Amino acid sequence: MADASVGIIMGSTSDWPTMEHAARTLEDFGLAWEAEVVSAHRTPDKLYSYAESARSRGLKCIIAGAGGAAHLPGMTAAITDLPVLGVPVESKALKGMDSLLSIVQMPGGIPTATFAIGKAGAINAALFAVSMIAGEDPALLEKLEAFRRNQRDTVKAAELPPLTDA
Amino acid sequence: MADASVGIIMGSTSDWPTMEHAARTLEDFGLAWEAEVVSAHRTPDKLYSYAESARSRGLKCIIAGAGGAAHLPGMTAAITDLPVLGVPVESKALKGMDSLLSIVQMPGGIPTATFAIGKAGAINAALFAVSMIAGEDPALLEKLEAFRRNQRDTVKAAELPPLTDA
Amino acid sequence: MADASVGIIMGSTSDWPTMEHAARTLEDFGLAWEAEVVSAHRTPDKLYSYAESARSRGLKCIIAGAGGAAHLPGMTAAITDLPVLGVPVESKALKGMDSLLSIVQMPGGIPTATFAIGKAGAINAALFAVSMIAGEDPALLEKLEAFRRNQRDTVKAAELPPLTDA
Amino acid sequence: MADASVGIIMGSTSDWPTMEHAARTLEDFGLAWEAEVVSAHRTPDKLYSYAESARSRGLKCIIAGAGGAAHLPGMTAAITDLPVLGVPVESKALKGMDSLLSIVQMPGGIPTATFAIGKAGAINAALFAVSMIAGEDPALLEKLEAFRRNQRDTVKAAELPPLTDA
Amino acid sequence: MADASVGIIMGSTSDWPTMEHAARTLEDFGLAWEAEVVSAHRTPDKLYSYAESARSRGLKCIIAGAGGAAHLPGMTAAITDLPVLGVPVESKALKGMDSLLSIVQMPGGIPTATFAIGKAGAINAALFAVSMIAGEDPALLEKLEAFRRNQRDTVKAAELPPLTDA
Amino acid sequence: MADASVGIIMGSTSDWPTMEHAARTLEDFGLAWEAEVVSAHRTPDKLYSYAESARSRGLKCIIAGAGGAAHLPGMTAAITDLPVLGVPVESKALKGMDSLLSIVQMPGGIPTATFAIGKAGAINAALFAVSMIAGEDPALLEKLEAFRRNQRDTVKAAELPPLTDA
Amino acid sequence: MADASVGIIMGSTSDWPTMEHAARTLEDFGLAWEAEVVSAHRTPDKLYSYAESARSRGLKCIIAGAGGAAHLPGMTAAITDLPVLGVPVESKALKGMDSLLSIVQMPGGIPTATFAIGKAGAINAALFAVSMIAGEDPALLEKLEAFRRNQRDTVKAAELPPLTDA
Amino acid sequence: MADASVGIIMGSTSDWPTMEHAARTLEDFGLAWEAEVVSAHRTPDKLYSYAESARSRGLKCIIAGAGGAAHLPGMTAAITDLPVLGVPVESKALKGMDSLLSIVQMPGGIPTATFAIGKAGAINAALFAVSMIAGEDPALLEKLEAFRRNQRDTVKAAELPPLTDA
Repeated sequence: MADASVGIIMGSTSDWPTMEHAARTLEDFGLAWEAEVVSAHRTPDKLYSYAESARSRGLKCIIAGAGGAAHLPGMTAAITDLPVLGVPVESKALKGMDSLLSIVQMPGGIPTATFAIGKAGAINAALFAVSMIAGEDPALLEKLEAFRRNQRDTVKAAELPPLTDA
Repeated sequence: MADASVGIIMGSTSDWPTMEHAARTLEDFGLAWEAEVVSAHRTPDKLYSYAESARSRGLKCIIAGAGGAAHLPGMTAAITDLPVLGVPVESKALKGMDSLLSIVQMPGGIPTATFAIGKAGAINAALFAVSMIAGEDPALLEKLEAFRRNQRDTVKAAELPPLTDA
Repeated sequence: MADASVGIIMGSTSDWPTMEHAARTLEDFGLAWEAEVVSAHRTPDKLYSYAESARSRGLKCIIAGAGGAAHLPGMTAAITDLPVLGVPVESKALKGMDSLLSIVQMPGGIPTATFAIGKAGAINAALFAVSMIAGEDPALLEKLEAFRRNQRDTVKAAELPPLTDA
Repeated sequence: MADASVGIIMGSTSDWPTMEHAARTLEDFGLAWEAEVVSAHRTPDKLYSYAESARSRGLKCIIAGAGGAAHLPGMTAAITDLPVLGVPVESKALKGMDSLLSIVQMPGGIPTATFAIGKAGAINAALFAVSMIAGEDPALLEKLEAFRRNQRDTVKAAELPPLTDA
Repeated sequence: MADASVGIIMGSTSDWPTMEHAARTLEDFGLAWEAEVVSAHRTPDKLYSYAESARSRGLKCIIAGAGGAAHLPGMTAAITDLPVLGVPVESKALKGMDSLLSIVQMPGGIPTATFAIGKAGAINAALFAVSMIAGEDPALLEKLEAFRRNQRDTVKAAELPPLTDA
Repeated sequence: MADASVGIIMGSTSDWPTMEHAARTLEDFGLAWEAEVVSAHRTPDKLYSYAESARSRGLKCIIAGAGGAAHLPGMTAAITDLPVLGVPVESKALKGMDSLLSIVQMPGGIPTATFAIGKAGAINAALFAVSMIAGEDPALLEKLEAFRRNQRDTVKAAELPPLTDA
Repeated sequence: MADASVGIIMGSTSDWPTMEHAARTLEDFGLAWEAEVVSAHRTPDKLYSYAESARSRGLKCIIAGAGGAAHLPGMTAAITDLPVLGVPVESKALKGMDSLLSIVQMPGGIPTATFAIGKAGAINAALFAVSMIAGEDPALLEKLEAFRRNQRDTVKAAELPPLTDA
Repeated sequence: MADASVGIIMGSTSDWPTMEHAARTLEDFGLAWEAEVVSAHRTPDKLYSYAESARSRGLKCIIAGAGGAAHLPGMTAAITDLPVLGVPVESKALKGMDSLLSIVQMPGGIPTATFAIGKAGAINAALFAVSMIAGEDPALLEKLEAFRRNQRDTVKAAELPPLTDA
């Protein structure tokens, strides 16, 4: 748990199937990351110590995923002034609409960057972290550009299957 | 700010026009209350010290009002095990639906009792506090019963105006 | 059905898989509870007699779960001035959004404390009942604090699995 | 308050500006009506006695208007087996979506006929009452047919204003 | 298809699994019914002839079920002045919220009585038809009262299973 | 009311402040149009005759605006196989969400092209009509291209005001 | 990929199970079509070249399907002034409500015709394309009329199964 | 309009009353900014050239505000790999819910950081830009910390007015 550039936190181990996509994406770019369960509601003291020490431990930003009344991203942003990226995890009943609104509708003064509900949001939070860090890291920027080119080429090469019978 | 039974906190002075209805209701029942601005996002340290000391300062419960990504009730409940009553304040764009979901959709383990959006919710949080405290306070219970009887009689005495011309 | 501190009622036996989480939570704290099917719509007379006799039978609060046009919590609160805790049961088509709004949007004058949709709400209504009763019961308060500490420690000890291959 | 065919009830005098449209519509058809404030939450006893005596007092149906956690129509239908017509009154924060879902999403077994949010719903509940009663009342049916013809002709005669400058 | 008191129509055979609950409920009360597929969009001519002839064929009311942009109930009500009862069928993507709003939000002048989304709505539309017709049919009223008593007794006799291990 | 290329219909004169934007846009392109009040619910016979005769009267498409349970566009499309363009008019309580879903969620088999809620939708329905007709009308296509160029240039020339004091 | 009248584009191969219904419908009418993956976000350059060349390549309209933050239809319409028909693909968490609003709520000036979420929308976009093209193609119009007659007859011939036991 | 660190773009001058809050916030921190109207739909060519040249012109990130079918942030992110911060502008009918979903629900691969609807979102996008840039700019970080301290102290010093008479 040292020398990471990006911290990934989530309210519960049940968020990991979503948040591991952030980890894997960072891994693909060779960015050091750490991941921990930090619950705003059940471990508020850990939230405080994690967020307060984040900058001094060398983190450049924090990706926080949570579902339902998702307070983790906003409360992390309340304690650290590092950039905080929030991922709304899909909730059972309301499908993540509660998670999304709980994260994105922050009052003026404490920003939380919010991404899509679920897996796409986790991937994109990581890609956004890459783009932030790439601003000062030409090698990483090159990797990002290669990723984008590759993504573009993959889509261009995609072939649709033939029309099947109804 | 001492000897209060009920603490009323809110994220901003702009929540007072909603939350003062809680204060007035408690006042009507002769319950001592205190009210303060405590912002989960802008003053997380104050939130911690307020919530941590609440029981020892004699509070029996806390009424917390907030709008938008409303984290104050849930975070207060994360720190104290006093009963926390959440009031969703009506927000500008989403009319309090964001406030409501941010407060009510708490994960299992940390409860927050939630009331209606806006003024009705503030009144009802206070009435609920009265009903909780009245369980051990026969004089207060009598007042509550009188309030309910009076409310009933007022509704029964209500007269509808005559039908006007279209 | 005697000597219970907390009454659990629900509109239908089909609500039991949700509401049993309230019962089990109370059980874990050693609080005596009772549970019954009381339908606001199909047994309004039973609702009346249940709610009217609740205080004299020794109940300290009532947890009421219902789905769809969920009138049980609000109507119970209309008849008794005991604290009523409402649990929105997840409905088939609208996923509990109808249940939630039917319970939480009570008019000023008759409060119903509302919790999250589904299992989390049932657990939290029970925990909230514990916190209310613990105010006058030091042994129960100790159990609640132990529960919270234990919950905190469990989250802190949680370990994320290693990153799997995509 | 005797010899009415249709009873109009509502939770509060503040619902009258909506519900008077039901009264006026019935008046236009020469149907005797009565109107009263009956609050499911604040006067549950009056609700019971009103609903229980409705059929014996000669009512053919009941139009019930309510807003927010709107329990009046459903609870009236729980007590009487007269047809109950529910009108969702527009609420402040959620614009009647809460009222609508609280009224329409009744469980199987206790029906409540629901109409549109606000004034249109009040008018239509009254027109629906007319159509029910007209089934056994040829003179009323003739009036209804005349109303419909007249309505049709009015729309057909409607003229749009000329195009104004932007 | 003659001598029916209640007509049941629906936009597609795929609505039958919902609407058959209306038919069965009428059957249970011994009310003669007929059921047909009538699509507002695909067979507007059939809709017209069905609705126009409904009263003269002896129908007392029409139950119309439809999903998505559900125009069948409202358009039926536009053509006949018989009471029309609308049942929103649960749709795939929006879970019947589109069906509900398309049916219930009728403009003032043409009423459509709306019931809950899906099976509960189909049952309740039939029960509502029973209650309308029972106003002039003492034997049917007795059956309705027996149904209600029986329903009440069934709920009262319901027993909850014992608490299982977590 | 002859020789029009585009018919504009709407459920009520109250829809004209929205729908006149469609008329004005067509006017700007020199396309002949006609506009009438045709209510699906109050004048179903006029709807039928209007839609049935539309193609033979020379219309190329129909723009239909309606609010609430907005059945006009879909029912028009049920009767004619001309292209029908639907404009959801903003409704009072639900702000056009009901209008939008009632128009757009048509079942497979009867298409209705849907545009944005309110004024923007009315303008765009007209522009879409222009683009359809321009496919066979080079002079009109030139006008459309000029409109688009002009629109582009206007946006490009837009200047933001200087930053004012807070 | 030449000589097509209708272009079908979609953001990802995962949209094909929805969009192939558009292709099959066009096929049924004997209209030449082409289908390609064009992602607004991942291949903006391809989007530009596709849209810019569409008219000169002989396309009469473009059907664009996308899910989530669905920008493909609107951006295609921003670049070409051919008619663009948008199909909201059902998304995982929000069930296509995000797709629908992202496509339909276009600002005045750039129209996108929007159809229902999912398969019905794909079929209807194709049928709408048929109706547009049929305006200048009598043989195609005849096919469309035959399709509509056949559809009508199929619905009329539909038989409901007998009532099964509960 | 040179040497700016942050570019602010918006779809229309009507978005300026929202987006100027971003500009003013950047101004308060002494960060150079530029602001322009760039419409994804009406000036797609300008969008392309703006986004493509953004990095080489020295921008560190782009704040993009848009309402309704808000495609500007996502399309900007599709063209540049600079960090893009999206601000959902409150729309007339749907109050910014359409804007929010159009911006935040991006597919995996192209991230857009999303902030709250309206003024709070504009302020927070700017503050987020500050926090990103402050990672490499100790003087700016000091300003950010001072802003946060000051904000905290202001909230702590806030005084609630005395309870007024009802």
